[in-house]
Amino acid sequence: MSNFGFLELRLVNAYGVAFREARSAVGASAVLAAAREFPSLAEATADCSLVVGTASLGHRDPQTPLHRLERGARLMKRHAASSPRGIALLFGSEKFGLSNDELSHCHWLMRIPTRTEHESMNLGQAVAVCLYELSRDGRAPDHLAKTFHAAPSESLERITGALSGLLERSGYTNPKTAGSTELKTRRMIRRLGLSEQDADVWLGMLRQIRWKLGRDE
Amino acid sequence: MSNFGFLELRLVNAYGVAFREARSAVGASAVLAAAREFPSLAEATADCSLVVGTASLGHRDPQTPLHRLERGARLMKRHAASSPRGIALLFGSEKFGLSNDELSHCHWLMRIPTRTEHESMNLGQAVAVCLYELSRDGRAPDHLAKTFHAAPSESLERITGALSGLLERSGYTNPKTAGSTELKTRRMIRRLGLSEQDADVWLGMLRQIRWKLGRDE
Repeated sequence: MSNFGFLELRLVNAYGVAFREARSAVGASAVLAAAREFPSLAEATADCSLVVGTASLGHRDPQTPLHRLERGARLMKRHAASSPRGIALLFGSEKFGLSNDELSHCHWLMRIPTRTEHESMNLGQAVAVCLYELSRDGRAPDHLAKTFHAAPSESLERITGALSGLLERSGYTNPKTAGSTELKTRRMIRRLGLSEQDADVWLGMLRQIRWKLGRDE
Repeated sequence: MSNFGFLELRLVNAYGVAFREARSAVGASAVLAAAREFPSLAEATADCSLVVGTASLGHRDPQTPLHRLERGARLMKRHAASSPRGIALLFGSEKFGLSNDELSHCHWLMRIPTRTEHESMNLGQAVAVCLYELSRDGRAPDHLAKTFHAAPSESLERITGALSGLLERSGYTNPKTAGSTELKTRRMIRRLGLSEQDADVWLGMLRQIRWKLGRDE
């Protein structure tokens, strides 16, 4: 919950011993400390304008719409954008999930699209997956990759020249087809997708080898 | 892993005791039984054409591109579509994550977009979130909701009539504004978004109340 910024935990009919002895993950103690207990689901969700239950296909009640998580999360975000009241996302016990009575409090249900051969999920993982989907942003700019600056053509050309020289000197290049070998080399270097920094390092390496080759002759 | 259909687990330098005594979640024993151990990361990933590491912002190495999970998963799917060889998704130990040496084996890195205030994630939850993102399908038809058949207008009109009759009979409707009350009622009924089945139930309830009201007079 804390990883994805969902900070309000509500517990219904919590098993006292487990709750009191629960230790939070690193950094999430605030969520656990602020958790509130309620005697009934109706009271826990009283101030929520949308109650979404999590269920497997097996729990399906034909009277309650069941959405895949991808669509369910979209519906929840749309609701949040138009309603000032909270949304409750309801998880049942690890072993039994939500009861039919609990499911009847839900406006609709949501399921994580697992393989049908293996539907039952660990509770903590199911919560993490649902909250990730709610906070994911497919259009978020990938600014984290900004440090990658592609090398300019002049750097690539210097590498091409250095490698071509090496190939000639080492006898790799057949003098009759030297022209086509250089074109091949130029294209191969382009396909490497080098960064500016990497291009400099490669050039340094090639020049050093070339120097050594010249000296040994 | 089993929930999302990723069945090939490879372990590098596994802690023997923990591995031998590991018990799989319900239904996932096949994954654990088929897990293979390797003495080094190079051997574990030898047959993979793409190695993607998972890292937090703190682990960032400016030489290795770091993508958000949303974009990283897209890149992995694109790679899988064009390459017959496998893709390795690399997770470090729960406590320390991947080492710099391990990170150097990766083509690029990926991070789950957690809040910056709380980046460190439980390993099992991080794996679940990554594999969910890889298997999620935002365009998947929401066929699970197919059981919802919206009620036809004739049903809604019958409900409107029944409720209007009840409102008149109970004295709710002011005879002078009966026309506008009926319009209001009709619109309210439409906004309920009733299913075919629910419409029948509502009609039955209203008619029963109407019958009782008539009898008591």
